[in-house]
Amino acid sequence: MRSRKLRMGMVGGGPGAFIGQIHRMAAALTGEISLVCGAFSTDPAASREFGITLGLAPERSHPDYRALLAAEAALPPQERIDLLAVVTPNASHCEIACAALERGIAVFCEKPLATTVEEARQIAEASRRNARPVALAHTYAAYPMVIEARQRVRRGEIGAIRKIMVDYTQGWLAPARLPAEQKQAAWRMDPQRSGPSGCLGDIGVHAAHLAEYVTGRRITRLLADLGRTAGRALDDDAALLLRFDNGARGVLTASQISIGEENDLSFRIYGEHGHLRWRQQRPDSLMLAIGDGPVQVLRAGHSTLDSLTQAVSRLPPGHPEGYIESFANLYKEFCTQLRSGSTAWLPDVSDGVRGMQFIESAIRSSEAGGCWTPLNAEDAA
Amino acid sequence: MRSRKLRMGMVGGGPGAFIGQIHRMAAALTGEISLVCGAFSTDPAASREFGITLGLAPERSHPDYRALLAAEAALPPQERIDLLAVVTPNASHCEIACAALERGIAVFCEKPLATTVEEARQIAEASRRNARPVALAHTYAAYPMVIEARQRVRRGEIGAIRKIMVDYTQGWLAPARLPAEQKQAAWRMDPQRSGPSGCLGDIGVHAAHLAEYVTGRRITRLLADLGRTAGRALDDDAALLLRFDNGARGVLTASQISIGEENDLSFRIYGEHGHLRWRQQRPDSLMLAIGDGPVQVLRAGHSTLDSLTQAVSRLPPGHPEGYIESFANLYKEFCTQLRSGSTAWLPDVSDGVRGMQFIESAIRSSEAGGCWTPLNAEDAA
Amino acid sequence: MRSRKLRMGMVGGGPGAFIGQIHRMAAALTGEISLVCGAFSTDPAASREFGITLGLAPERSHPDYRALLAAEAALPPQERIDLLAVVTPNASHCEIACAALERGIAVFCEKPLATTVEEARQIAEASRRNARPVALAHTYAAYPMVIEARQRVRRGEIGAIRKIMVDYTQGWLAPARLPAEQKQAAWRMDPQRSGPSGCLGDIGVHAAHLAEYVTGRRITRLLADLGRTAGRALDDDAALLLRFDNGARGVLTASQISIGEENDLSFRIYGEHGHLRWRQQRPDSLMLAIGDGPVQVLRAGHSTLDSLTQAVSRLPPGHPEGYIESFANLYKEFCTQLRSGSTAWLPDVSDGVRGMQFIESAIRSSEAGGCWTPLNAEDAA
Amino acid sequence: MRSRKLRMGMVGGGPGAFIGQIHRMAAALTGEISLVCGAFSTDPAASREFGITLGLAPERSHPDYRALLAAEAALPPQERIDLLAVVTPNASHCEIACAALERGIAVFCEKPLATTVEEARQIAEASRRNARPVALAHTYAAYPMVIEARQRVRRGEIGAIRKIMVDYTQGWLAPARLPAEQKQAAWRMDPQRSGPSGCLGDIGVHAAHLAEYVTGRRITRLLADLGRTAGRALDDDAALLLRFDNGARGVLTASQISIGEENDLSFRIYGEHGHLRWRQQRPDSLMLAIGDGPVQVLRAGHSTLDSLTQAVSRLPPGHPEGYIESFANLYKEFCTQLRSGSTAWLPDVSDGVRGMQFIESAIRSSEAGGCWTPLNAEDAA
Repeated sequence: MRSRKLRMGMVGGGPGAFIGQIHRMAAALTGEISLVCGAFSTDPAASREFGITLGLAPERSHPDYRALLAAEAALPPQERIDLLAVVTPNASHCEIACAALERGIAVFCEKPLATTVEEARQIAEASRRNARPVALAHTYAAYPMVIEARQRVRRGEIGAIRKIMVDYTQGWLAPARLPAEQKQAAWRMDPQRSGPSGCLGDIGVHAAHLAEYVTGRRITRLLADLGRTAGRALDDDAALLLRFDNGARGVLTASQISIGEENDLSFRIYGEHGHLRWRQQRPDSLMLAIGDGPVQVLRAGHSTLDSLTQAVSRLPPGHPEGYIESFANLYKEFCTQLRSGSTAWLPDVSDGVRGMQFIESAIRSSEAGGCWTPLNAEDAA
Repeated sequence: MRSRKLRMGMVGGGPGAFIGQIHRMAAALTGEISLVCGAFSTDPAASREFGITLGLAPERSHPDYRALLAAEAALPPQERIDLLAVVTPNASHCEIACAALERGIAVFCEKPLATTVEEARQIAEASRRNARPVALAHTYAAYPMVIEARQRVRRGEIGAIRKIMVDYTQGWLAPARLPAEQKQAAWRMDPQRSGPSGCLGDIGVHAAHLAEYVTGRRITRLLADLGRTAGRALDDDAALLLRFDNGARGVLTASQISIGEENDLSFRIYGEHGHLRWRQQRPDSLMLAIGDGPVQVLRAGHSTLDSLTQAVSRLPPGHPEGYIESFANLYKEFCTQLRSGSTAWLPDVSDGVRGMQFIESAIRSSEAGGCWTPLNAEDAA
Repeated sequence: MRSRKLRMGMVGGGPGAFIGQIHRMAAALTGEISLVCGAFSTDPAASREFGITLGLAPERSHPDYRALLAAEAALPPQERIDLLAVVTPNASHCEIACAALERGIAVFCEKPLATTVEEARQIAEASRRNARPVALAHTYAAYPMVIEARQRVRRGEIGAIRKIMVDYTQGWLAPARLPAEQKQAAWRMDPQRSGPSGCLGDIGVHAAHLAEYVTGRRITRLLADLGRTAGRALDDDAALLLRFDNGARGVLTASQISIGEENDLSFRIYGEHGHLRWRQQRPDSLMLAIGDGPVQVLRAGHSTLDSLTQAVSRLPPGHPEGYIESFANLYKEFCTQLRSGSTAWLPDVSDGVRGMQFIESAIRSSEAGGCWTPLNAEDAA
Repeated sequence: MRSRKLRMGMVGGGPGAFIGQIHRMAAALTGEISLVCGAFSTDPAASREFGITLGLAPERSHPDYRALLAAEAALPPQERIDLLAVVTPNASHCEIACAALERGIAVFCEKPLATTVEEARQIAEASRRNARPVALAHTYAAYPMVIEARQRVRRGEIGAIRKIMVDYTQGWLAPARLPAEQKQAAWRMDPQRSGPSGCLGDIGVHAAHLAEYVTGRRITRLLADLGRTAGRALDDDAALLLRFDNGARGVLTASQISIGEENDLSFRIYGEHGHLRWRQQRPDSLMLAIGDGPVQVLRAGHSTLDSLTQAVSRLPPGHPEGYIESFANLYKEFCTQLRSGSTAWLPDVSDGVRGMQFIESAIRSSEAGGCWTPLNAEDAA
């Protein structure tokens, strides 16, 4: 018999927010989570009203995370939230996540985890100290065929990795002047809310995560060329040369000014024996070639896939699953982790620290005019 | 402020059932529906236990629809279900749907609506008499880009329709002897549970629905060539020539023995001025060509699409939505219909009658050795 | 050491003709053929002038095939042509081909071979009597990956054939009124020059040929639904149900009014063990699936392909070859046949007779209102 | 009336050579060129014998280019060659090309033009001094849809260029130990014959050429990361960051160790108003998006394309043309240039100099550990 539903709170994600609504749909799709409280707006009435539209009891919507956490603490233990979704702009992740963890509440945090490596480490430390896990919204890692790619690499099917190409291309920041209604752009291009990086923090960090996540290899050095449209405070285009811990070479490109592109994330991984290719625009297919044999189109839903892959797939072959299902996989696996204490594949706080190291190293490299830079001091030591 | 969540019951969809779980996920994704009761198994204990795993109160799971409806009737009105999902094999749709409608409960029914035109008409009559709507699970009609195709046709963008090609190809019934665990096949190939058709009722009816739904044209005559693997009681392969009310010509093919195919549904619609093409394997793209101009790849999520299309899309362009989202669109629109009294696009009981007419006409044509047959007597008169 | 180049003449293919120029390019690409004479226009001066632009000696261009054949007969044997390309409208194929064969000249004939089965048989008889071969321009049969598909079927890789889908879709006849410069349409829609069929003779016959050629199965019965735009003398759209000699079922569709389509020829062949899919728009790929295993993308140029396939491929993998190369494969194989006396795969006069039987049976079926019709009387007997 | 065929000689391209045979097929396909002499092998008998198989007179095959040029000089002017195809390994291009030019013979040279900038300039100077043109085998530039892309950029359809991504991926050098029969690899990995670069000279130079050719922008700086498999003398993998003369940013990747890839060349060009994408695996399609409007699939053969595009296309839409046709476009345009004195689009000796500057700059950058390097000293001054 299944355990009770887990209770979730949310900070951020009010009216008009994109990602908060995704988190709520993803959590609902799991069938294992109830959203019970939130801090959706700094205006108490607005927060309460929005909570009501979501079906929350009026008294469980708050103007900020402090009020939320205080109110939760006042509840009997069996009514308190099990996890808190943090979907605010990056700059507030650290204080919110740490406060929740200190109160024994697990955190599901949007990426990037923070705005500095230092902040990320504070969250990691709070997680460790309070023995409460942090899940990170690296959605693309939870697509069934991405997990399949990872398992195939682990099983050695393509041999030692030689070359990793990862590309994340968008066009929504192509216009020099963005329409006023473009709320997403406003905070993402504002260093006070977004942190030191625009494109890298928003999408580059996804690409870097995938490169390491799927291959199990670690970036040791990088050389970054960051671009920024005149008048903007943060990068909106990036190209990086990479070197991995086993000597593999890589290229990571990320762009938000590639006009006409939607959300085109892809990787190609070349090993000694074969390659794997995946593209989010057709997420249920994974291309596998061994030697110079024919490309095989592996498809989600088949019983020949890895058991981990099958576990994150809901439908028989040929019934497309998409971004929300992938997001729901993260939440579902976090439920499993919260109930059982372990997870086989969920991106966590260490991935978040890693992501911030990636961003900081890339900025250092680019500001130095483009020079090879160790990913982080410890690794370089 | 949003109204309260609608309360839903379910008949069928117990452990191991494919489609019941899809219905539950789709309903959950809407955020507007609570599943509160069910009849999941004829064994009372099994039904109750399964309901508990779904989070239902033990007393609200029943061994059959009669017990469920009786228990609902005994509840205060503000606790009774608003809608009943009927996800049993086809042969029981009619009695269950009619019984629910008679008690004033709206019905969301799996397709095909029934096993005969006569049954379908009984359901239609019960719906009319009780002023309660019936929604039909023509999932593919609820993909955003299918709705876009329909709106483009309505706006006359491709001109008068000349030719309609629709194809639905699967391979799962290719093996002459199916593995024992293939539960889906067992009832689908059993006339007692499935009705007079296998392939046509299971997938052909989707294809026929799409052909009419997207174009607004009605099939007036058809010529069917149904195939059946030796040892099977029902068709598993079908090819039909079609003629529509405006003289347009068409071909409908459906197969469940096309080995190696997954669930490949597609249509191509040719008008006097242009064409539209769509394929479920890439559901977020719709191909449009005007004259011999370049094919334009219309993509879900864009603000230039029809407002109906945008209303059934949850994500910005480039974030794939799939089958569950499409299914959720049906449920969401049914909620809208139940609250507001009307719907702009939801497949309903008349589509269900139409589907049964299609199946019966096709069987008549094929049994006559392949001859042109009116789709139904009324139309032919 | 290679033998001398073969000498070729051409009847038809004058200024503005589409297919004549293709034949000349294809022959040139073989490196084994010299075009030495022609009858390009009924105006003697125009024919001569056109020949000169092609590099022919002025005295070897003629106003008609009779003059050409007479002039050839007057030459010393070592200067006479080895083969004659017949690229005139269909209605004149028979007399030209027979006359050439009677003089001991091999014929490379455009398809359809003739305008009636009777004519086709006359050509076949002339070929037999004079022991000179006739090659037929079924270009698509000569694509490397079509030959690969055929060889895979022959080797039993997909098992006994159960279902054959073949589709040839064009849009160039979509406009009700064609532009005056559309010369191709003028003769193709004229029964005096084209014979009794438009769409079937022009493209349907290619599709029917492929269905039999690749599978080795023979169509025994068909049911045809031919369409014709008002004001036209011949069919421009066709849908056929097929039955093959082993009981396999099939559907053949061909259309020239599918607006916005270019030249989209494809087949899907389903056997007991696997399937094969090919599409001319990506001719260097062949999809193969065994059971419900992953689709394998077989690609031209690989050394793992059948030796026949490799023999008709000129480039390493990833260097696209197209329509002209395929056409050149026909000419090259005809050279081989003329030198060696045999061919492993070249479409010949018997394919031409077969094509005419297909056309006549389809017309009979459609004129009878759509009824199952044996492909030819002999087969039916 | 067309002028006489041009007479061509060839140096290199003997038995087993890949590219020589391509040149001969391409030249034949033009219908404007006769191959009349060659130096195919350093063994006089082998060269003569091979020439005979190609249909050459025995006395016109020679053991080396000197003998060939001397023999040509001894012929009456009306029998001498108009152009010489140089298809030897790179290291001999300079002396052969210069010698031919000095004798007034135009040169069609394989790429890269030479092994150093200095050599390339010698060829350019010889071309200028003798007023004889040099065509360079940048085959990909001659695909119809690449020319279309170039014309669209020129007409300003996508606005000022902001970002250029070009990728050329192969896998044939993936095995650490290549099979003995892999002749292509032997000379390409030998600095004595190939020059200072492997991958860059073989394919990177194509990618760099396309980037500049299509956009009209010039690379001013680059930063290169070249890889080399242990035991090899030359690079077999490359990633470059680029900066163009208008400030546009770019990334060029080229690899010959990407196991399982065939010959995957593609570009994506992002301007201020739109983008263009092309991939050699589907050469007859060009993707165009304006703003965030739908991607339009422009297709070869349409009468709406640029007149230059139409002039290099032989077939109606939907009939694939490939690599050999593209190669033939180069030869055909070279014939036009030789007859008329000018060309609108043919890659020439200045592209060859440019290519060598690209290679030398990239090697300098990579050897310096990866630093931004001006493309050539003159540009940097």
